[in-house]
Formats: sequence, structure tokens, C-alpha cells
Amino acid sequence: MTNKLIYLDNNATTQVDEKVLNSMMPFFKSEYANPSSMYDFAKTSSKAIADARVKVKEFFNAESEREILFTSCGSESANTAIKGVLETNKDKRHIITSKVEHPCVLNVYKKLEKQGYKVDYIGVNYNGELDLEQLSEAITDDTALVSIMYANNETGVINPISKIAEIIKSKNPQTKFFVDAVQVAGKIPIDVQTCGVDLMGISGHKFHAPKGVGALYVNSKTIISPLIIGGHQERGKRAGTENVPYIVGLGTACEEAQSFLKYEASEVKRLRDKLESGILKNIFNARLNTGLANRVPNTSNIGFEYIEGELILLHLSDLGICASSGSACTSGSLEPSHVLRAMNVPFTAIHGSIRFSLSRFNTESEIDYVIDVLPGVIEKIRNLSPYQDELEALRTQKAAAGCSCM
Amino acid sequence: MTNKLIYLDNNATTQVDEKVLNSMMPFFKSEYANPSSMYDFAKTSSKAIADARVKVKEFFNAESEREILFTSCGSESANTAIKGVLETNKDKRHIITSKVEHPCVLNVYKKLEKQGYKVDYIGVNYNGELDLEQLSEAITDDTALVSIMYANNETGVINPISKIAEIIKSKNPQTKFFVDAVQVAGKIPIDVQTCGVDLMGISGHKFHAPKGVGALYVNSKTIISPLIIGGHQERGKRAGTENVPYIVGLGTACEEAQSFLKYEASEVKRLRDKLESGILKNIFNARLNTGLANRVPNTSNIGFEYIEGELILLHLSDLGICASSGSACTSGSLEPSHVLRAMNVPFTAIHGSIRFSLSRFNTESEIDYVIDVLPGVIEKIRNLSPYQDELEALRTQKAAAGCSCM
Repeated sequence: MTNKLIYLDNNATTQVDEKVLNSMMPFFKSEYANPSSMYDFAKTSSKAIADARVKVKEFFNAESEREILFTSCGSESANTAIKGVLETNKDKRHIITSKVEHPCVLNVYKKLEKQGYKVDYIGVNYNGELDLEQLSEAITDDTALVSIMYANNETGVINPISKIAEIIKSKNPQTKFFVDAVQVAGKIPIDVQTCGVDLMGISGHKFHAPKGVGALYVNSKTIISPLIIGGHQERGKRAGTENVPYIVGLGTACEEAQSFLKYEASEVKRLRDKLESGILKNIFNARLNTGLANRVPNTSNIGFEYIEGELILLHLSDLGICASSGSACTSGSLEPSHVLRAMNVPFTAIHGSIRFSLSRFNTESEIDYVIDVLPGVIEKIRNLSPYQDELEALRTQKAAAGCSCM
Repeated sequence: MTNKLIYLDNNATTQVDEKVLNSMMPFFKSEYANPSSMYDFAKTSSKAIADARVKVKEFFNAESEREILFTSCGSESANTAIKGVLETNKDKRHIITSKVEHPCVLNVYKKLEKQGYKVDYIGVNYNGELDLEQLSEAITDDTALVSIMYANNETGVINPISKIAEIIKSKNPQTKFFVDAVQVAGKIPIDVQTCGVDLMGISGHKFHAPKGVGALYVNSKTIISPLIIGGHQERGKRAGTENVPYIVGLGTACEEAQSFLKYEASEVKRLRDKLESGILKNIFNARLNTGLANRVPNTSNIGFEYIEGELILLHLSDLGICASSGSACTSGSLEPSHVLRAMNVPFTAIHGSIRFSLSRFNTESEIDYVIDVLPGVIEKIRNLSPYQDELEALRTQKAAAGCSCM
């Protein structure tokens, strides 16, 4: 089993679906025209983009395909949304986000703060759920924009987007609402009309399209200025020759994701739950960091007390198992995750928290294998932990309480 | 012959080289890890990016691969360079560019002008050559940035970049120099160290990598702020999960382009010259819009007086021949090209100017075919022209001068 890869890091990136790749291939080969060219040869590529735009529009359930922009990634989608909205509305100087956003939102806000914007960072509770009251109180007449992610990349916790939209619009109908939906695309249904958002961003590589393509929904009532300025592409909202193969791939991935939503909600969730309960049952002082919060079906964030997450990951890597601590985008930093810190995960668990994130390509036998080997990995690392006294005390305490997992 | 595609629009985009595509394929299939991840599985993708960065560094002849950033396109490279330099140097409020830049530079400058920057737009002569004296006079102590393209996309005219760098630095050593090199990559050798530029941008799809990847050289003495903010990728200068397949493809394309430079200078140039002289010999009142200016070896911009370029393109399209009027990025506009206007191309020719741009994939028989059919196309369109009197006068004039081509 150790030669086989068990990929449980699908919130970091996913494998490209074969159907997606197949749909892209003609545009790497014979159909290489620049879609802006006027000769017949360009008609196939320009039509392919138009078709993909309809598919992405349907994925968002947007009103019109004119509300869909193609970008090069989720970060570009978020940057375009935030800076694009603020640049067309320079009078208002107050913006709101949450403490647990992805760096592509949080770091833009931090920069805007330095540039003179007043920023409110809304907190979350110990399960990672957004403080809606704090959000409601923060909105003023001067609030230009609220950015709240649909689901968190590290914990999978879903924010009640429709409710948040309601709160925002009831306090200030002019405030624009951007939702980073990168971590829900392909996991739960998206419907921009029902949930009342103004802008929403997704990233292809989180749901089996390649890395390097994203989309941004901007409703017809919202004006943005472009982040990348140049030619007339994307109706002047995003310059640069269109990445035809990836745009086609994103369209296919949206169609595929839509057709697998039920499978995600049932089978992927079943495997995630099996993994989670297997771990919590077999490993003592493992804690589900999100408690009872509503989550996307594929994600589990579990804290293993008194040990280092990086060590767990290295041992798992030796066994061919891919998981992560924090997000790939912030890896390399020794600071514990800003998300888990915002949730006040106890210091005993925050350094030893691991995210497992599944996809439709994971199998039951993979999950069984992880449940089988993980207790040994944790035990081995804990035996090297400098916190032996604390661990022994915990073992005694658990044994006294009649807990079977050691 | 009419069923075969004759693609003479390689300044708009190029076909992906088979070697480039083959090098990308593993990263669409088994090697899908996020290169920022810490497990073993990610080592192949992170090493692939490192290897590609070395190849691109060698292509630029940069000092260090730390001077290379990967972007999503040439427009992003230019936007990053211009905005990135200005944001780290906010005291200086004067910037310079040329009248014939690509929209991804020109439109950024126009926006900066609206934001309060003083902008000088340097002109060109009737051959499209930059007015170096005007440039020299424009540079002041307050000049933060000069952006001049290496070669023009519509005419192929090469600017003397080393000389321009000398002029800039002798007038103000602090002024940064950005060169949009999108139209020279793969056509003539690039050497950032010899030519003394601070920043240089290229776009993969102009030299047989796919659409949707570019690179930006930023020398070690130049600090830029990122355009896309988020994770730590590209050493904090460009957020977003790396587009591993395309970055690998760009590396391969750079290697391939380097190995074909001699072929470009000899064989591609020979075919271009054959096409050009064939057209000028066989079609009366066709003019080479660039005169004796130094050009990249693949480009020919020819004006056919008294007719509409769009009509020529449609007729050529029917024959399977792809060429363009102006750039693909500005197509759709009925205005004549800003480049040809800046060159003062006579009004009789400006609307009927066509760009032919070759690549190493063009063959002699394709060129022969175009030389063969183009005179008939032009004749057909001229017979429908409202300028019959002018055309007749020209014919008489040419005949009296003993010119054979009618």
C-alpha cells in the first residue's frame, strides 16, 4: 500500500478530471487561434469561450453570462473583486472582512488598511462560525464592501451566505458583498441569485480543472474596474489573450462538478465521516476543531494534542498519504494557522492540527488504510514529545473515565 | 490548397510546440500536487517550477533565477511592472512611454495620467522608429519609469533598447526602465544584462507556449509591489497557486526558442522577405509601412491603398489564410491602428494595411501560395472600391514610369 498515493489534500489542489483534460486538448493542438481574430479559423476558439461562459454562468446560476469574467486564479478573482469595487466607489472608506479569510482577501485588506481604509475584521467562535452580530454592528453608511468566504479552506466551515447578504443589505443596501467561494465550488450547490451576493470568485484547480484559471461573478448592478488593464478582452474587465484551453476546461469542470454534487453530499461525506470517526475513536486526545459547525462534505480539521503537525505530515508522507496543516498558501511559515488562532483552538492542539480534504477520487480502501496507520504515527511522535508528563496525565484521566482509545 | 490553413498571424498567437505540450502533460496527469505542499508528492512539481525558472532566466540571460516571476500573460507582466514600480516609489510623478505601445502598457499609462501622473508619450517617425531625441529631452529628475517596447507588435520595428537604456540612465540613473519584450521573444536574442533594462516582460503564447502564461524579469536592484496579493508564491510578488503545467511549458518554449533563433534569423526571415518582395512586386501601390527600419525577422506590415483591410482579411480567410490588421487585442474597433497613425501612414493606405507574421512552422509552399493568390484578391476588392478615379490615375502614373506591376 505504501507505494500508492493517498491524496487527502484536495482543498490545496485537485487532480485534473480526465474529461476536463480531454475537452482542453484540441485547443492545445489544432485550434490555437487567438479568439479575438476575425478570420474563420478563430471562430472555434471564440465559440468555445462563449460556450464555457454559459456553463460557468449555469454553475453560479447567474442571470446572464455577461456577469462572468474569466481570471487566472482564485487570488486574481478576489483581488479583482475587492480592488475593482473600491476603485469605482472611492468616497466610501470603510470595509469589512473576517479574521479567517484566505490570504488573497486578508492580505489585500491589510494593504488597504495601510492605505487609509478603516477595516473591521469580524471574528469567529470556537467552532469557526462567524459572529453575525459583530458583523451587523460593524456595517455603517460608509461601508463600501464586505468580503466573507463561503467556506473556510482550513476547516471547511460554511458561512450562512444568504443570511449574511440579508444582514448587509438591510443595514446598507449600497454595500457590496464579495464572496470567496473557492472552497465550496464542486462541494455544495452555488446559487448567486438566491443568496444575494454581488460578486463571487471561484478557482478551477479546487474542483478538477487545472491550476491557473478562475472565474469571477459580478452581478449586473455592480461596476468594477479591471485589475489587469490592456486589450478589450472580457468586455474590458480583464485584459490578456484568453487562455482558451483552461477556460474550456473550467467550463467542463463546472458541468462535471454539478453532476457530482449529490455524490459529494453522500459518498464523499460518508468517507470523510468514516475517516473522522475512525480517527477520533482510535486516537486519544484527538479533537475535531470545528465541533458541530456546518461544514462542506469533504473537509476534516483534527487537532492532535502535544505534537507538531509538521511531524505528522512527514510521517504520513512516508506512507504515501498527503494531508496538510494550515493552507498550502501559508505553508513554510512556523506561525500556527491564523484560522485556528481566530477560533481559539487550545495551544496544546493548535500546532498539531491536520486538515484532511477528500475528493470524489478517494476510495474506501484509502480511508481504511489511513484509519489503520494513523494511530501508530501519532503514538510514535507522542513518544518523542517533550510533554510526556502531560500526556501521561491525560492517559490516566481518560482511563479513569473508561475511555477505550489510548 | 484552400482546405489547408496558412497561418500568418503569429504576432497574435502561435501554435503550441509539440515538445512544449509533451513537457506539460505529466503535470496535467499524475503530478498534480500543489508545489507549496510539504509532502514528498509535491517535490516533483516544485522542482519542475525551479527548473523552468532556470530556463527562463537563461532565456533572458538574467543574473539569477530570483529575478524571474511567472505571471498569467504578457498583459499581467506589463501591469505588474508598471504599477509595481510606481507603488514602491510614490514621490516621483512623471512617467514616459511611446505612442505605439501595446494597450497593456498604453492603457495603464492613460489610467495613471487620469490619476494625476504627468505622462510623456514619445512619438515615432514614418518608419515607426522611436524619436530618441524627444525621449532624452523628456527625462527629468522626477521621472519614475520609462516603458518602451522592444519591438512593435504591428510593424515588427525593433527599438534600440541598449541605447535607450543608456539615454535614460545618463539623464537619471534612478529612473526605472521597463521593456515589453513580448514581440521579440523567440525572434531575436534577449540579454537583459547587456541591454541594461530593469524590468522586461514576455508572453508564452507568442513563441509556442500556451496562452495564459508569461514571465517578468525584475533585476535585483528593482523593488516592485505585487499586483495580485495573497499567498507567498513567487517570493511574495505574485500570489496564486502556480500554474505548474504552463510554467513547465514556458521553460520548454524558452529552450526551444533559443535553439531556433538562428533559424528565425535565416529561414523565417528569408520566407518573410520572399513574401514581402513578392507582394510589393506583384501588386501595385502596395507599400511596406516600415521602410528601411530594423525589424524582427517574421513581421511584414504592408499597406494596400484605397481599400479596406477588413475586406482583404475576409477574402484571405476564405482562402484559408490568416493575417491581421492592427492587433488582435484592438480588433473589433473601426478606428485605424494607433501605431500606423503615430507613424503618419497616409490615409489612403492606413485602412488597407495588413500584418503578415510568420513562425518557424510556415513553409515555402505556403508563402508561394499567398504570393500567388493575393494579387487577385486585391484586384477584386479594388474593383469594388469607390476610389476608381484615384486608382486609374495611379495606374497611368505607374505605367508611365515603366512599372511592371499593375
